[in-house]
Amino acid sequence: MKVKNLIGERFKERPADCVTDSHAFMVRGGYIKNVSNGVYSLYTPANRIKRKIENIIREEMENIGAQEVLLPEVSTGSCDNADKPLSENADCSVSPVTPGLTKEGTAVHLVREYGQSYAKYPFVIYQFKTEFCDKARPGAGLLGAHQFTSNNAYSFHASQQELEEHYEKCREAYDRIFSRCGIPEAVTVESYIRAEEECISHKYMLLTPAGEASVAVCGECGYRADMDSAESVTANAIGIPIGDLEEIYTPDLSTIEDIINFVKVPAENTCKAVVYQKNRDDKYIIAFLRGDLEVNEYKLTKAVGEGIRPALITEESGISPGFIGPIGLPPNTEVIFDRSLRETEYLVAGANKADMHIKGLNIRRDYGEAVFCDIAKIIDGGICPRCGKKAISVCRGIELGRISQAGTSFTKALEMQYTDVNGESRYPVMGCYGIGIEKLAASACEVCHDEYGPVWPAAIAPWEVQLCCIRADDEETGTYGEALYRRLLREGIEVLYDDRNIRAGAMFADADLLGVPIRIIVSPRNIKENLFEINSRDKKISLKVGEEKIIDEVKRIIKAIPIN
Amino acid sequence: MKVKNLIGERFKERPADCVTDSHAFMVRGGYIKNVSNGVYSLYTPANRIKRKIENIIREEMENIGAQEVLLPEVSTGSCDNADKPLSENADCSVSPVTPGLTKEGTAVHLVREYGQSYAKYPFVIYQFKTEFCDKARPGAGLLGAHQFTSNNAYSFHASQQELEEHYEKCREAYDRIFSRCGIPEAVTVESYIRAEEECISHKYMLLTPAGEASVAVCGECGYRADMDSAESVTANAIGIPIGDLEEIYTPDLSTIEDIINFVKVPAENTCKAVVYQKNRDDKYIIAFLRGDLEVNEYKLTKAVGEGIRPALITEESGISPGFIGPIGLPPNTEVIFDRSLRETEYLVAGANKADMHIKGLNIRRDYGEAVFCDIAKIIDGGICPRCGKKAISVCRGIELGRISQAGTSFTKALEMQYTDVNGESRYPVMGCYGIGIEKLAASACEVCHDEYGPVWPAAIAPWEVQLCCIRADDEETGTYGEALYRRLLREGIEVLYDDRNIRAGAMFADADLLGVPIRIIVSPRNIKENLFEINSRDKKISLKVGEEKIIDEVKRIIKAIPIN
Repeated sequence: MKVKNLIGERFKERPADCVTDSHAFMVRGGYIKNVSNGVYSLYTPANRIKRKIENIIREEMENIGAQEVLLPEVSTGSCDNADKPLSENADCSVSPVTPGLTKEGTAVHLVREYGQSYAKYPFVIYQFKTEFCDKARPGAGLLGAHQFTSNNAYSFHASQQELEEHYEKCREAYDRIFSRCGIPEAVTVESYIRAEEECISHKYMLLTPAGEASVAVCGECGYRADMDSAESVTANAIGIPIGDLEEIYTPDLSTIEDIINFVKVPAENTCKAVVYQKNRDDKYIIAFLRGDLEVNEYKLTKAVGEGIRPALITEESGISPGFIGPIGLPPNTEVIFDRSLRETEYLVAGANKADMHIKGLNIRRDYGEAVFCDIAKIIDGGICPRCGKKAISVCRGIELGRISQAGTSFTKALEMQYTDVNGESRYPVMGCYGIGIEKLAASACEVCHDEYGPVWPAAIAPWEVQLCCIRADDEETGTYGEALYRRLLREGIEVLYDDRNIRAGAMFADADLLGVPIRIIVSPRNIKENLFEINSRDKKISLKVGEEKIIDEVKRIIKAIPIN
Repeated sequence: MKVKNLIGERFKERPADCVTDSHAFMVRGGYIKNVSNGVYSLYTPANRIKRKIENIIREEMENIGAQEVLLPEVSTGSCDNADKPLSENADCSVSPVTPGLTKEGTAVHLVREYGQSYAKYPFVIYQFKTEFCDKARPGAGLLGAHQFTSNNAYSFHASQQELEEHYEKCREAYDRIFSRCGIPEAVTVESYIRAEEECISHKYMLLTPAGEASVAVCGECGYRADMDSAESVTANAIGIPIGDLEEIYTPDLSTIEDIINFVKVPAENTCKAVVYQKNRDDKYIIAFLRGDLEVNEYKLTKAVGEGIRPALITEESGISPGFIGPIGLPPNTEVIFDRSLRETEYLVAGANKADMHIKGLNIRRDYGEAVFCDIAKIIDGGICPRCGKKAISVCRGIELGRISQAGTSFTKALEMQYTDVNGESRYPVMGCYGIGIEKLAASACEVCHDEYGPVWPAAIAPWEVQLCCIRADDEETGTYGEALYRRLLREGIEVLYDDRNIRAGAMFADADLLGVPIRIIVSPRNIKENLFEINSRDKKISLKVGEEKIIDEVKRIIKAIPIN
């Protein structure tokens, strides 16, 4: 391929709407083009990177015994979307084409008859497929695209132990995949999928401020979890001892901050209210939690057991916004308490009438029997649910992939059973595994770039060598360059040849944006000297060799570049 | 890969619902599984065939200078669907994701800025993408699937001549692709796409009774066209000379056949009416054509210039079903005449009142100025529009691909312009090219099979070699087989190893269904004799070689098998 024929445009200025470096470089380098909000076309370099990533995944999947298949499209909804409980995801992926069949369901459907005897287990299938995500992330490019290529694998097992063994193998395969793609620092964080059983799941995250997701990380014990899975642990019964319940006049003081300042109690002794409505019947449900905490709506949805939305509080509801508390709520209002309120014996809360609060609230004494759930977000500086130390930091990350032990919910849904050694019918347990290809490419770019452009890891670089011919318009130089280009091609080396008649600076700037690992420079001068420059894009290698050694040297460098 | 781990099931009985051989073999051989009407999952062997076809297409596309890209999904409607005029197709492919953008539009969008100067032309992009077809063909398997993988290429040119040159190159590339996939007999048939310009288009057809489409072929001059494009030519002014117009009482005679028998005129002297309604305003439009011909609704739609449907004739309409003719129709009824009526001077037609017909109708004399269009189907035994001989036969075929000269309609729609040598702005002309991958695989199976299963062409076979080990349970034989399997793998040969403990007949039946080109048989006896059988699936090669020659012999055969 010659640069002059490479469709796409490269340019210098960072587009104003790019919020991540990978997006900016991929637009500037002619990798992608924005079609509409979150929808991108891939030019040749990006498509080549995508295919190399796919082939790495193929190798690693085949290596752990998985077989590539192709399952039909069932939906335009995203099912890897962790923002919703699984039950909702399952709904969103029901297809007009294959009624009642989820994405996982198509996998079960394919192997249902094959997997009728225990002797066939374990087995694993995988595929590549275009998927759609409801929410594109504006300005993030391929890190937050509406459409993407997904690698999904499904493993089937005759026992939980067998699943756990494969799960470990798959973790290792995923580690190798991310490593080979230039992201050895990808880490797993705990996550859960909520099917009828609560199942173990891990997300592979690249921790970076460019990420779309928040992750809780413990600086002491290494605990890592996504925000929806991280248990919020609060210190016990701190602050003010038990007291009398009394009303206080708090005109115009409707926020927690106002109350804290006015009553002079710590935030830990206030009871905050957040009002939701159930999607099903519009009924109000009020979440109470400690004033210093925030609601995690995923946890709340799970605790409530059905879909909810932030409330629109009407006058008829009888709810007094800004002055809501557990005592004296209008009838027909449901409440849910966060566990942070369980041990606190003195609280300031709303009085459920305008301009009034109560202080000295003791939930057990004044409200009675209450159920406490974990509905709060884990906080930066909070207590680690594993080691108990105050060492949680909340940081951002890119979700690169996800592996889950999915139990029997999908096999049960499609009545897939096998006969075990004793002749009894059993439901196989499943593992589900997924990686987003374009997002992985963009993440590699986030990790591997300098100020001039991407520094593609050799294993996924669009080409192995970029041959830059300075003054290809000079007959000797042009002929020499073309001959070397042909020679590299004959040797089976993937080479991108730049023989445009432009100045060296512009040529190198383009080469930097294309991020090809090895660069060979041909110019009238080095032909004269019979010394050709070979540089690596990461600047770690820079040498001059004679003509007779170029091919060997390039091959040596290709072999030497760590591809993990 | 070992057969015992190959997910999927093979069986003997032809499923009752399979109307094509390829479907039956692909179901029986564990290639595909039906998910719902026209929707299939692909098991590993089918997926491997699919990937090999894709790689052949990649090679041939790169060979003519095309670059692989990835364009976003814009629709779930099919746009290669030739049953509708292009304007309708364009509508069906408008996306909720990318409003107003057709499939071709995404291609134009990608290169719009790149192609601003004449110096960049020509250039070609291609991609692979899942597509959806409205109409699945029941029982036809991958020959008529609702979902399929499509290869689409788009070429951009600064002149019609340049387009025509590339069109020829692409024709040759397509010829090579179909040849390499085992279908050298694929032929082009003329077709048209109707954009704002009428453009040349060709469909690649495999003529076979298993096909879904009808094709008109001239036995004399080699003219071939699809039914929608084949001009219907009728002999001139045959039959009865001009006569008086008179009404005849025809009680209960409402079909053309009834009238022919009653009035005793040839079908060529009758005027048949077929009633449609316009989709837009429900207005009636009546198509008149010679009694021996049928309406081609695609041509009719094109002639009418808007969407139509078969009519629901109400009493209020004033139309007398069974007795419709050109004279005395209710007002507000549009008519359209087929060209077959143009030269006929004596016609029998309906009288537009119950139980009455007219005879002696002369359209010019009695109806007046009429516009005649080609709205009839070309017929078997009809006149060839090219050579004029009565040598047309209508046969069935599978549409494998399509190439079109699309003019400037897509570039105009997206205002893509380039500056020509003289500094003037011009719209580039486009070529559009497409192949359905799974359909090509199934077509190869239609062409290349015997009574026992597919005989996959070497270039697209799922594996190169199937190693059958009879009595792998015998220690010496099992060890020998395993060692040979490893050796073949090390030599880079794609090998499928069957070491199941089943009888030879069952093993060979499975091997026949998997259709792998070369079969090696290991058994206790041939180990003892040091003579191993190597057979080709097409039965053309059958030899015995000593152990030391196996690898060389296999490699020689792989090289020798014609892959075009």
